[in-house]
Amino acid sequence: MPADPHRSAAILSIGDEITLGQTLDTNSRWLSQRLLDAGVTVREHVTVPDDLGALTRAIERFTGASADRVDLLILTGGLGPTADDLTRDALAGVLREPLVDDPQALADLRRIFAGRDMPVANLVQARRPASAECLANPHGTAPGLHALFDTTDIFCLPGPPREMQPMFEGHVLPYLRRAPGESVVTRVLPTFGLGESEVARRLGDLMDRAREWANLPLVGTTASNGVVSIRIRATGDQHAAARAADGVADQCRGLVRPEWILSDSDRSLAAVVLDLLRERRQTLALAESCTGGLLGSMLTEVPGSSDVLWGGWITYANTAKASQLGVPRAILDAHGAVSAACARSMAEGALRQSGCDHALAITGIAGPAGGTESKPVGTVWIALASGGGPTIARRFLFMGDRQNVRVWSAQSALGLLRLRLIGREDCALLRERELA
Amino acid sequence: MPADPHRSAAILSIGDEITLGQTLDTNSRWLSQRLLDAGVTVREHVTVPDDLGALTRAIERFTGASADRVDLLILTGGLGPTADDLTRDALAGVLREPLVDDPQALADLRRIFAGRDMPVANLVQARRPASAECLANPHGTAPGLHALFDTTDIFCLPGPPREMQPMFEGHVLPYLRRAPGESVVTRVLPTFGLGESEVARRLGDLMDRAREWANLPLVGTTASNGVVSIRIRATGDQHAAARAADGVADQCRGLVRPEWILSDSDRSLAAVVLDLLRERRQTLALAESCTGGLLGSMLTEVPGSSDVLWGGWITYANTAKASQLGVPRAILDAHGAVSAACARSMAEGALRQSGCDHALAITGIAGPAGGTESKPVGTVWIALASGGGPTIARRFLFMGDRQNVRVWSAQSALGLLRLRLIGREDCALLRERELA
Repeated sequence: MPADPHRSAAILSIGDEITLGQTLDTNSRWLSQRLLDAGVTVREHVTVPDDLGALTRAIERFTGASADRVDLLILTGGLGPTADDLTRDALAGVLREPLVDDPQALADLRRIFAGRDMPVANLVQARRPASAECLANPHGTAPGLHALFDTTDIFCLPGPPREMQPMFEGHVLPYLRRAPGESVVTRVLPTFGLGESEVARRLGDLMDRAREWANLPLVGTTASNGVVSIRIRATGDQHAAARAADGVADQCRGLVRPEWILSDSDRSLAAVVLDLLRERRQTLALAESCTGGLLGSMLTEVPGSSDVLWGGWITYANTAKASQLGVPRAILDAHGAVSAACARSMAEGALRQSGCDHALAITGIAGPAGGTESKPVGTVWIALASGGGPTIARRFLFMGDRQNVRVWSAQSALGLLRLRLIGREDCALLRERELA
Repeated sequence: MPADPHRSAAILSIGDEITLGQTLDTNSRWLSQRLLDAGVTVREHVTVPDDLGALTRAIERFTGASADRVDLLILTGGLGPTADDLTRDALAGVLREPLVDDPQALADLRRIFAGRDMPVANLVQARRPASAECLANPHGTAPGLHALFDTTDIFCLPGPPREMQPMFEGHVLPYLRRAPGESVVTRVLPTFGLGESEVARRLGDLMDRAREWANLPLVGTTASNGVVSIRIRATGDQHAAARAADGVADQCRGLVRPEWILSDSDRSLAAVVLDLLRERRQTLALAESCTGGLLGSMLTEVPGSSDVLWGGWITYANTAKASQLGVPRAILDAHGAVSAACARSMAEGALRQSGCDHALAITGIAGPAGGTESKPVGTVWIALASGGGPTIARRFLFMGDRQNVRVWSAQSALGLLRLRLIGREDCALLRERELA
């Protein structure tokens, strides 16, 4: 009788340095992505300190007759040579087996330390529970372990990502039993310009989680820095799942409307805008006041941005706005730096001086100080000047702290340019305010 | 009878995007550090998907008569307005209470949406289990929740760090009951310019974890964006612990040497440099190529930077370097943009045009493309020009990906300026390379 496929998994990270907050666990995320691609659903991530009792209870919870039982349990960490490395002991305890020397692992260790004295402590790394197998580690001294407990496959991998990742690729992935016709297909549609609740309202019943029971693709949303991403997940036969996911993606596009959807895949707003400019062989210059370089930083974070982005000015002081971009003293005196007139003048000055096709300008009050009754903290003017088109200036009122106002300002500037590039500057972005 | 102090905690993160590997959970690490500083030991991190059953089982496992019971359970995520946000329902289920409208939370929501239609979906965010209290969220629409179940305090916080962190500081920290005579005193000494292993080598036996058994303050290091922070933790009577921590901090300063220690508290390198300039009533201008505005963004992230930072130029294209900063065509042709001569010329041009006291210039190869044998990816020239002093230019070779090179470049520029301001420009920073 062939064994059942691996469908469910849990990931157990071990180490005081993680529960004490000294180290950020990135292994669980990496493993989740790889397992999802292999058709295995990760049900839970857990991190416990270097404590034999906690570690043993955690292993037991994911095995045997527990409600949380999974097909595949992956442990990372706790395989080192010191007294606080307890993974081997915990596994032996759960299996109710003694630890024995593994001759091959011992030979590998002696080879690694060839010509140097091996600390006695390292010998423990060649020990394994009697029924377990050691997994060779070409990148470090700690071999991995694989054991079957009841019907759960348990893999113990080293904590350092540089050792863990090749061991997963070499020993876990090839071992996985895949369900015939049970692939997991995901699609991500990033959007910008609507709030998360508005995106959800438009998606309506598509977000109903009961769809899972009818084997329909699940739809969810996540929000980060103003980008609301629609996430679609379909399971089943590879082709059928891909077709179902693509069908739902088309439905999402129709419901949310294409002008708000940035891309067919998980890309940043900056990368999307750079591509739109590149397709049109157009160039961009920046004039940043309250964002102080953040917009430029977002754009230049994308590799290859140099063929589109010419550069720009950080005109934090008013004297910089006047001397570098030619903003007239009269505008600054009459309207202040946070005004439609100043934003327009900055954008047009940047366009003129750079000779680019487009120039974006941002000027606003990021806080915490500097707000007034008529211009509260969060008030930001964004202007866009383009060769052969009218200059537009829009007023926004952003919420949150200084960094939030700055991030939303830079993103909204990119959103405004994107709407012009796709010919939809009639649309209003989230947090945009009509003038009273 | 006064209630027992909060000694143990668990952190429960909620969201498909985390278990699917789409998002990296950074909240658990941040919360662990803060709880540790407050004398609360984190026993476990758990992440479950947006699944009512899994979420409910996880809450129950940390409460009541369970072996895993903790004094404090902190949930993050699942408080949004959509159908896959299930934290409210799970908490109500565990408490066996109905969800009711919270009048204050409802009023707060209406205020946030003042003048605009509030999507009906958002109304659910003003609901809470009958015995729970809502926690105001000044940075978003999702209020938090606090409830007592059996003897465990449960706090539900929003997922976005920018909303979660202030809510933790404002509502969780002040609520914690500390053990009398068991204060935890922490000190953080941020350093810049040495590697983490060199800092650890200098600290020597101070980092021995066995010191805990002798009730001596523990010393650890964490590294982030080039800043290596020395963390000191002392427990005991408030005054004795503070005295012990301060004594160890003095030892650390002596061992690591004061020129590498940025501050007596946890501050960013940018904030430290802004303070040094402010004390001297000096001003700064920037000329950024490969960092593309990142240095400006780091400086302007600090509130009140406008009295020191004049502004700068993002000269990404060579034409921008020439037209805006007056870098001679001959330098670009003979040495290329990534050269000592170009960096010097950029810094001196920025100083001249801005009339500031100091100007920093950065030009380099952030990758992934653009490297050559003589100028591999990660090669960066940083120059500093100051009124009344010689212009200096230093070559660096940074490791890692594009964003890593950019962040280290901006930080090292600040580090170089700091060394000049404290009169120690004889020191070489980490990753600085002598010219062959």
